[in-house]
Amino acid sequence: MKKIAILGTGTVGQTFATRLNELGYDVMIGTRNVSEKLSAPGKDGAAKNAFAIWHEENNKTKFGTFEEAAAFGEIVLNTTQGTSSLNALKLATEKNLEGKILVDIANPLDFSKGMPPCLVPELSNTNSLAEEIQKTFPKTKVVKTLNTMWCGIMVNPDLIKGDHINYICSNDEAAKTEVKLLLNKFGWKDSNIIDLGDLSAARGTEAVLPVWLRIYGAKKSGAFNFNIVS
Amino acid sequence: MKKIAILGTGTVGQTFATRLNELGYDVMIGTRNVSEKLSAPGKDGAAKNAFAIWHEENNKTKFGTFEEAAAFGEIVLNTTQGTSSLNALKLATEKNLEGKILVDIANPLDFSKGMPPCLVPELSNTNSLAEEIQKTFPKTKVVKTLNTMWCGIMVNPDLIKGDHINYICSNDEAAKTEVKLLLNKFGWKDSNIIDLGDLSAARGTEAVLPVWLRIYGAKKSGAFNFNIVS
Repeated sequence: MKKIAILGTGTVGQTFATRLNELGYDVMIGTRNVSEKLSAPGKDGAAKNAFAIWHEENNKTKFGTFEEAAAFGEIVLNTTQGTSSLNALKLATEKNLEGKILVDIANPLDFSKGMPPCLVPELSNTNSLAEEIQKTFPKTKVVKTLNTMWCGIMVNPDLIKGDHINYICSNDEAAKTEVKLLLNKFGWKDSNIIDLGDLSAARGTEAVLPVWLRIYGAKKSGAFNFNIVS
Repeated sequence: MKKIAILGTGTVGQTFATRLNELGYDVMIGTRNVSEKLSAPGKDGAAKNAFAIWHEENNKTKFGTFEEAAAFGEIVLNTTQGTSSLNALKLATEKNLEGKILVDIANPLDFSKGMPPCLVPELSNTNSLAEEIQKTFPKTKVVKTLNTMWCGIMVNPDLIKGDHINYICSNDEAAKTEVKLLLNKFGWKDSNIIDLGDLSAARGTEAVLPVWLRIYGAKKSGAFNFNIVS
């Protein structure tokens, strides 16, 4: 089993780490500043923050900087916030990402103009976060997948009964095949993994977020996913 | 039964006209220039164009200018190409649209930069075609719906077995209710019509098109739709 690096310590990163540990993977989760991350106070004056509490309970997951995690991982997952992803990956360093599969799960959502967020203009429509990462790290094999749903479903599709779908796209066919095997481990059936071709399809899958957020608002729950029926 | 105007003589407009006639509605389809539309030659040197042939076979549908159609209709459907919609609606005239429901089915797709098309930047992300129409015609009740699927399914959801969904949004609740009744006539069950709230949700539903086009490319068929499962 390949060693897996997770860049980003938010809910998405934690969810992947816990699930990958359950599945027997050796995992390191990476952040910008390790000591800051652990020592930052929690919300409402709590002594510990959510990540520090999570990490005490999930100490099978190794914890380090973006650079240490990327050096450790044979496959790297990007679960950072989309607006920070390129900076996080630069801290991970090009050398540590070279030749590796980078599974990009992030979305270029811009929350700075209020809710609901829009997509970052220069990372959408005629571009995408995934493509920008690929351009910035040409020797890394970027695979976009899982970014169109709530993170609980990403790593455990059986949370929802019946068929529902997950898109995948990449410029590297072999990388796509390897990521599909990881998706299978999470519980994704091949017939529910929709191969949309090369990485430019990420323009489409990242643009699912605006309608996803509106459905989430209407349903008051993120525990849903899309299916394609014909 | 209310009289219905359809702005736009392409496949989508024709599909609505035929179906609405079947359902007993009195329909007028509108174009920019009536005589040009009928006299233009067909593809590959054919004497008649597709619309002229269609109209001979569907002569229950009245045919006129955008302005005549909008004056005739009590409900107006926008099935023009998204990049032309605002011009078409200006030709329909503000006076003819005032106080009426305008069902906006168009998408602001820009095919000028090659395939796949992108969304028109100024009509997407922090704006939408539907919102721009609403801003331009403040006394018209704009309702966005049906724009996320192939037109055959729009007017006949039973073409696909089982549940699949159609979004609706508008700033006018009464208009939304009336359009839902029309959707019911097409065969849409209330439980499959997802109310996303006000018209800004069109930013999300219009942004479905980029992924829709990629799925269409992967499946080589437009005879599919999305369902939401939870």
